[in-house]
Amino acid sequence: MPGIVKERLFTPGPTPLLMEAQLRALTMTLHHRTDAFRALMRETLDNLKYYFNTKNDIIVFASSGTGAMEGAVSNLLSPGDRVLIGTAGKFGERWVQLAKAYGIESVVVEAPYGQEVPVGEMKKHLESGGFRAVFIQATESSTGVRNDVESLGKAVSALPDCCFVVDAITGLGTTDLRPDEWGVDILIGGSQKATMIPPGLAFASISDKAGRAMEKSKLPRYYFDYAKERKSLAKGESSYTPATSLIVCLHAALNYIKELGRENLIANAELLAEASREAAVALGLKNFAVGTPANAVTSICAPPGIESTKVVKDMKSRFGVILTDGQGSMKGQMFRIAHLGYYDFLDLVAVLGALEITLLKVGHKVELGSGVRAAQNVYLRHSA
Amino acid sequence: MPGIVKERLFTPGPTPLLMEAQLRALTMTLHHRTDAFRALMRETLDNLKYYFNTKNDIIVFASSGTGAMEGAVSNLLSPGDRVLIGTAGKFGERWVQLAKAYGIESVVVEAPYGQEVPVGEMKKHLESGGFRAVFIQATESSTGVRNDVESLGKAVSALPDCCFVVDAITGLGTTDLRPDEWGVDILIGGSQKATMIPPGLAFASISDKAGRAMEKSKLPRYYFDYAKERKSLAKGESSYTPATSLIVCLHAALNYIKELGRENLIANAELLAEASREAAVALGLKNFAVGTPANAVTSICAPPGIESTKVVKDMKSRFGVILTDGQGSMKGQMFRIAHLGYYDFLDLVAVLGALEITLLKVGHKVELGSGVRAAQNVYLRHSA
Repeated sequence: MPGIVKERLFTPGPTPLLMEAQLRALTMTLHHRTDAFRALMRETLDNLKYYFNTKNDIIVFASSGTGAMEGAVSNLLSPGDRVLIGTAGKFGERWVQLAKAYGIESVVVEAPYGQEVPVGEMKKHLESGGFRAVFIQATESSTGVRNDVESLGKAVSALPDCCFVVDAITGLGTTDLRPDEWGVDILIGGSQKATMIPPGLAFASISDKAGRAMEKSKLPRYYFDYAKERKSLAKGESSYTPATSLIVCLHAALNYIKELGRENLIANAELLAEASREAAVALGLKNFAVGTPANAVTSICAPPGIESTKVVKDMKSRFGVILTDGQGSMKGQMFRIAHLGYYDFLDLVAVLGALEITLLKVGHKVELGSGVRAAQNVYLRHSA
Repeated sequence: MPGIVKERLFTPGPTPLLMEAQLRALTMTLHHRTDAFRALMRETLDNLKYYFNTKNDIIVFASSGTGAMEGAVSNLLSPGDRVLIGTAGKFGERWVQLAKAYGIESVVVEAPYGQEVPVGEMKKHLESGGFRAVFIQATESSTGVRNDVESLGKAVSALPDCCFVVDAITGLGTTDLRPDEWGVDILIGGSQKATMIPPGLAFASISDKAGRAMEKSKLPRYYFDYAKERKSLAKGESSYTPATSLIVCLHAALNYIKELGRENLIANAELLAEASREAAVALGLKNFAVGTPANAVTSICAPPGIESTKVVKDMKSRFGVILTDGQGSMKGQMFRIAHLGYYDFLDLVAVLGALEITLLKVGHKVELGSGVRAAQNVYLRHSA
């Protein structure tokens, strides 16, 4: 049946693009060493503060989110420092690799895939002292769980020489985050997530405590020099050539997000995530996240006896729907539906309607319409 | 529950735009009196012949479809001529108004709204002779019915001095049409329909018989002079300034349609229309079309005791879905979902998922998911 099939992106980054932001970038003629750019950059940084829910300065790099993660390590630490890392999946493991790359000793508290980081265990480690920084994800998008940033942050706050670094690349815009209240010293974000624009920008907020730690840090760094970038951006400039079209895009997208409201953006992802989980159950599937589920992405276990890879492939070839399979050792065991940014309820209805047919086609019995109905009931509960 | 709501257009024109065609127009720098434009125009006209399924010449006007309809009247007829008109709705009535505007006497065969034109009755009128032209719609989008163009065309073919004019503005790309086999002398189309581009262009194919009739016709005309335009376009030029960005758009969209295949474009609309009709029944609603239903648009009766206007309003405000209410005296009695052009199956799943919630909200009891399920079953039947 060769008919019209539109591509629909349901991956946890890149995410669907906000066309009005794309169009702004399309017509731009900005040079970056001008007053016009500096004014736009300052507005963008102010709006990022709104988006991050913080009063702290925010810096922007032309890089993927990993670049800002690397910067958090290289700007806060010195040779011989020890750090504490909480990991619940592939992105937590990145903190471990980064520490290793810089020769930093780390104590790792690991959750089995699907569970959240046992923050209580991390707090016990903190009591023994001697950590210069603590690293964690707000939401672990490889497994679809959310970590307890608040509780861990409050514990780290009490330690004068220890900074708290949170990778909120998929957490921002999908989860209520209060970095200032919770003592988050560096909060990291990326452009290709809930900000609805293409990949290429990384963001990091810097607390006063982090600023002081950076002054003492002796690890080597150049491009990802947080202090240098903070100083440049205070004048509306970046140290090196900024990705101007992405900055223009971001400026437009943050205006949209301000108009929509940060809380509404988060509530939108929350509704879609809850509806996806209930749809999965209605379709006889298990949710992969046994810990607190993230709103950013819903991870659903493969149907019994069927590889999730088959589901992902059929959704792509039949319906143009791009889901993600499990990463690493989780490949074949689960698939993921993202809710990051520019999705509405009908986007979810469409993907669930497709999923029901795909499940039948790969050999998993479902009642057609039952996943959609479960999602509709969640919608009705929220709109009542 | 203020969240993200994307606008989704389900009206029988304008229709969803093919972005790759829009982007081509966005970057164009064409002047219309150049070889480059003439080459592009010739290719476009060739591709229009493929789209129309005809060997006849096709002309293009910068106008709405109504302009080409007016031209069919003013180019074929002379004062004192009589015509036969088959009408099944608002667009059939336009033929009657056009004849009247030019002082042409018309015999009108009228079907009640929701039924197709009784072509047998028209054929009987033809036996009495004296008609210079016969006018009908391929599909009447105000009611969602399809007329029997083939049977009527074959009857008119036998008459040497009578031309057969078909408004296929919503029929093209949604219905199997064989204008050359069926003796259609003028077939009319418009850009904002299954060609997936914005409004602003009208098309008309001209048979040899129509060409001969035009030579004898004495009604006044200037802008919509078919013969003049045909002569200009043979050189790749238009008589007056062409809507260049729309021509570039059309060129790109027709390339997409050729790649997809005309038959597949039609089959796509057929699947969506059939799925919509079965979904309506599953939701306890009646299909408005009692005659042969059109693939271009599905007209669904309002829920018992509830004005369709309420359904249309709730779909717009709650979900951003733009449906059309009934036109004229049908307002409040039905609503319409279009399948013209750039829609895929998941677009329909989304609109049905929305409709189920809206029906509940306006007070019509439905089993959630049951309309989606009916559509999924149609999909499975077609894909088996």
